Amino acid sequence: MTHTLILLRHGESDWNAKNLFTGWVDVALTEKGRGEAVRGGELLREAGVLPDVVHTSLQRRAINTAALALDAAERHWIPVKRSWRLNERHYGALQGKDKKQTLEEYGEEQFMLWRRSFDVPPPPLDDADEFSQAGDPRYADLGDDLPRTECLKDVIARFLPYWESEIVPDLQAGKVVLVAAHGNSLRALVKHLDGISDEDIAALNIPTGMPLVYELDESMQPTVKGGQYLDPEAAAAAAAAVANQGR
Amino acid sequence: MTHTLILLRHGESDWNAKNLFTGWVDVALTEKGRGEAVRGGELLREAGVLPDVVHTSLQRRAINTAALALDAAERHWIPVKRSWRLNERHYGALQGKDKKQTLEEYGEEQFMLWRRSFDVPPPPLDDADEFSQAGDPRYADLGDDLPRTECLKDVIARFLPYWESEIVPDLQAGKVVLVAAHGNSLRALVKHLDGISDEDIAALNIPTGMPLVYELDESMQPTVKGGQYLDPEAAAAAAAAVANQGR
Repeated sequence: MTHTLILLRHGESDWNAKNLFTGWVDVALTEKGRGEAVRGGELLREAGVLPDVVHTSLQRRAINTAALALDAAERHWIPVKRSWRLNERHYGALQGKDKKQTLEEYGEEQFMLWRRSFDVPPPPLDDADEFSQAGDPRYADLGDDLPRTECLKDVIARFLPYWESEIVPDLQAGKVVLVAAHGNSLRALVKHLDGISDEDIAALNIPTGMPLVYELDESMQPTVKGGQYLDPEAAAAAAAAVANQGR
Repeated sequence: MTHTLILLRHGESDWNAKNLFTGWVDVALTEKGRGEAVRGGELLREAGVLPDVVHTSLQRRAINTAALALDAAERHWIPVKRSWRLNERHYGALQGKDKKQTLEEYGEEQFMLWRRSFDVPPPPLDDADEFSQAGDPRYADLGDDLPRTECLKDVIARFLPYWESEIVPDLQAGKVVLVAAHGNSLRALVKHLDGISDEDIAALNIPTGMPLVYELDESMQPTVKGGQYLDPEAAAAAAAAVANQGR
């Protein structure tokens, strides 16, 4: 018997549409993003892949994506668990900055280093910055765990404990688990599941609003590497578009 | 130190608008209902009454009301707990029936007995009926607890164990608790809190989308009987309208 895990990146957000670095800034979904979330839920319903429990970040765009998708899948009533450990990568001092402008200002090499290097975080965000989360009540209990910037390596380090302690037990209990999260928290999970190297993960992009289904064996290893998108053609086209952001 | 409890009845649903008995049928909010939910959340934010945890039923209209209100109050990220014990009263064989038509068919006395008597439930709903929940996966674990009809007394009997075991502990832990539920599950709670008699509860109506705030002492007794609506004038007008349904 295998365990079923569904990954869902939130639909397009206001700042995706504006091409700004978002990170921990709590922006809303666009109308397009809301539609993507509903479509994701319809795909789940049509495929009969029905979540028993959902895990989300503490960020509006993932929370609302989960709610819209589950409503469309007639699974709005399942238990919900939330954690900051599923949040998007903290983009440090880049939060709120225009991606194209950042590319022009700092050049291709520095831009790609910040976007895709495994272990080089952007400069930290000052607590006094308008886009800081230092005063946000939802993170008040985090203390020194509150990030001011993160690289993908940092995201993995804070995500994996939650995977082991909260998500794996749900899978082991026989539940179909939906993880509604973000580009980089989901890249962290896919890297772990598929055993992708620190170098190769740079090229992996996860499209918004497209359910990605993994069947996992008893050791939580994928039976099919990379999982399976419920709408593979749309997913391939969308992933290519993500890779070209900032161009 | 007092404990803060917020009650919120879902906004107008499709079947409120059509004047049908709804009960456990899982209908959606109307656009007006969605607006009421958002307004409820804005009232919470403006009053600075900010929930730390939300309890909802397993029904879409309460789940979505909670999500919309919490988003508007910037509290979309708080923990969520759901239970069938917060569901609306099961309306038995009346589910899906027109209220006005039922009034004309059965007369004022029988109609008011079904709507407002404390301990006389409508005839039970057949499991084969299109509006039955007998095959609904969300209630698959209930076994013999699954209602086929309920009077208010039945609602109290299934709601109070949840109040004691799940909501009171959250209040005792110092959390501001939001209960997003239904006309009759909230009437059950208000009857309990305010010590309203089996006779007098018949006249109590709770308006949709209006946050009702109770401050409770250490014994979970209200410091002000009846609590306080954040928008008292709108609440009084809306409660009068509920009382006249079916006329």
